[in-house]
Amino acid sequence: MVKVLGPLLLTMGDACGIGPEIIVRAFQRGAADGCVVVGDLGVMRRAMAQSAEPWPLAVLDAASDLSSCPPRCLPVWQPEGLPAGLDELPVGRPEARAGAAAAACVEAAVRAVQRGEGAGIVTAPLHKAALAAAGVPYPGHTEMLQALAATSGQRPLPVRMMLANEELRVVLVTIHLALRKAVDAVTFDAVLGTLRIAQAAARQWGQRRPRIAVAGLNPHAGEDGLFGDEERLVIAPAIAAAVAEGIDARGPFAPDTVFMRARRGEFDLVVAMTHDHGLIPVKYLGVEQGVNVTLGLPFVRTSPDHGTAFDIAGLGRADPASLEAAIRWARRAAGAAPAVSAA
Amino acid sequence: MVKVLGPLLLTMGDACGIGPEIIVRAFQRGAADGCVVVGDLGVMRRAMAQSAEPWPLAVLDAASDLSSCPPRCLPVWQPEGLPAGLDELPVGRPEARAGAAAAACVEAAVRAVQRGEGAGIVTAPLHKAALAAAGVPYPGHTEMLQALAATSGQRPLPVRMMLANEELRVVLVTIHLALRKAVDAVTFDAVLGTLRIAQAAARQWGQRRPRIAVAGLNPHAGEDGLFGDEERLVIAPAIAAAVAEGIDARGPFAPDTVFMRARRGEFDLVVAMTHDHGLIPVKYLGVEQGVNVTLGLPFVRTSPDHGTAFDIAGLGRADPASLEAAIRWARRAAGAAPAVSAA
Repeated sequence: MVKVLGPLLLTMGDACGIGPEIIVRAFQRGAADGCVVVGDLGVMRRAMAQSAEPWPLAVLDAASDLSSCPPRCLPVWQPEGLPAGLDELPVGRPEARAGAAAAACVEAAVRAVQRGEGAGIVTAPLHKAALAAAGVPYPGHTEMLQALAATSGQRPLPVRMMLANEELRVVLVTIHLALRKAVDAVTFDAVLGTLRIAQAAARQWGQRRPRIAVAGLNPHAGEDGLFGDEERLVIAPAIAAAVAEGIDARGPFAPDTVFMRARRGEFDLVVAMTHDHGLIPVKYLGVEQGVNVTLGLPFVRTSPDHGTAFDIAGLGRADPASLEAAIRWARRAAGAAPAVSAA
Repeated sequence: MVKVLGPLLLTMGDACGIGPEIIVRAFQRGAADGCVVVGDLGVMRRAMAQSAEPWPLAVLDAASDLSSCPPRCLPVWQPEGLPAGLDELPVGRPEARAGAAAAACVEAAVRAVQRGEGAGIVTAPLHKAALAAAGVPYPGHTEMLQALAATSGQRPLPVRMMLANEELRVVLVTIHLALRKAVDAVTFDAVLGTLRIAQAAARQWGQRRPRIAVAGLNPHAGEDGLFGDEERLVIAPAIAAAVAEGIDARGPFAPDTVFMRARRGEFDLVVAMTHDHGLIPVKYLGVEQGVNVTLGLPFVRTSPDHGTAFDIAGLGRADPASLEAAIRWARRAAGAAPAVSAA
């Protein structure tokens, strides 16, 4: 884990979505002090122009060059090679150029962090269709970061998605797979790997030995094999192996009550087998405070728990609360206190 | 739908679980007026003896014979043929005799309602392993009721499980199946049948045309086929067929946000494809107020939204709130006002 006191890098996300405007709003609400935007100057200028009291932009020569940014300025580092005319794209729909630019900003941010010029990365939302239209060979942020973080010649790092809010932290064994395929992807290695990654990540945010609950895959966690045997054949053995390594893993528990129990304080983390078992409870009370954290990377990466919201992009209605929560989480995990990193 | 002003029948559930004690507590808190316990006299006596101020039992000759029960007595109708020695079984673990007795009480309650001797049935929790140990050929209440309610020679009635609390009502397309099998059970007929049953049931509790959201099966409801095609091939056509019949069905929506939207008031009901997609959000804020309602039966049936809780059975700590909510829901749906039905 690279620990530096550089700024947090905020990638602008899809230029046609709500990313640029929620970044502007987070800065103007004082929630992004010590952060640097990695994005297109024109796009960020356009987003700033739509705010009630526009700030000037501070154009940085390098991601780490935050010291040259006066107060009430938006610090932007524009990586080389972004497509031209991004600020003329219509908002609210997928555009290949916006997808290419979003990917280029993420790559530039990773390289900057790898050079020690940033304490971590907070990514504004990109759009999967725009990414695909641009020919980017990754379906989303997580897969892209995983590939970028691998040393050349290495296999992609095993990473996991964690969703967190004030009352619940959920780490997912499988994510963007058809449910039918997700069932097959729940293997001994996948579950044990998730437990190892969760345990290692929790140390970074200050929990030496988190109480990890493992949710089952099947109704009632299989009810002793009546409704499926993945708990008995796969999940319980993986938990036992994790316990033998010193991880405080428990379960498998019935999926329908384990999240309620974690919310009440019985566990620090829940490991869920599928995307929606894990995300339904995290989002149930509202997505405003949700944070997406990628565990297993050699640097800190968080993002808001929502997408590009094309339907409201450019209307000035997008809520920066989830982005702000993502910044807070990244600061805590990276040890990047705003005053220090801005100095 | 049989509508009578007889009592609501409360089946005692598994004698070794918390059923008997939460029934006693609901009566003593005044929340079960006009109800009759269908259960074993010895078991109910044992549960009563553990309460702070034990009431006498009123032994009824028939389920409908509530008029002979004085105030501050527990009215119990013991069906014929229950196993002996139930009150000597240790609490807190599955026992075949307890499973057999629980099933016998449910069957007796159904027959009583079919004879017009009860307004509806509220079932205390039974234990699936005890049921299986007793050789009962049904995995749970729902399947048993479905079979008992069918006229002889008919196929089992199509029923669906609804879970409801103060802020969310969820109807399930599949329930007690391994997730792998549940995916296969999400068919056009199963989804359309669920929508029809939900629509018909909502009329009974006073919603003529409920706004029904249909959750997808796959992450992001398949994301245009990227993560599974059940939405496109099965769920969307079933929704279209339901709409053509005049049902206000919408979707399929991403499972991870549709429940949040329903909670905020956008929909009256959510149809979920799997047990845990539906039950995770209903239970997330606590099971105290949750009610399980079986839709599609020719009589009202509700139950609390929790199990036998063997770990706390007999300790006097079990909370009757969910049972009490189940009684309230059954009264409303059956039109069984307590004063009238007790007269």
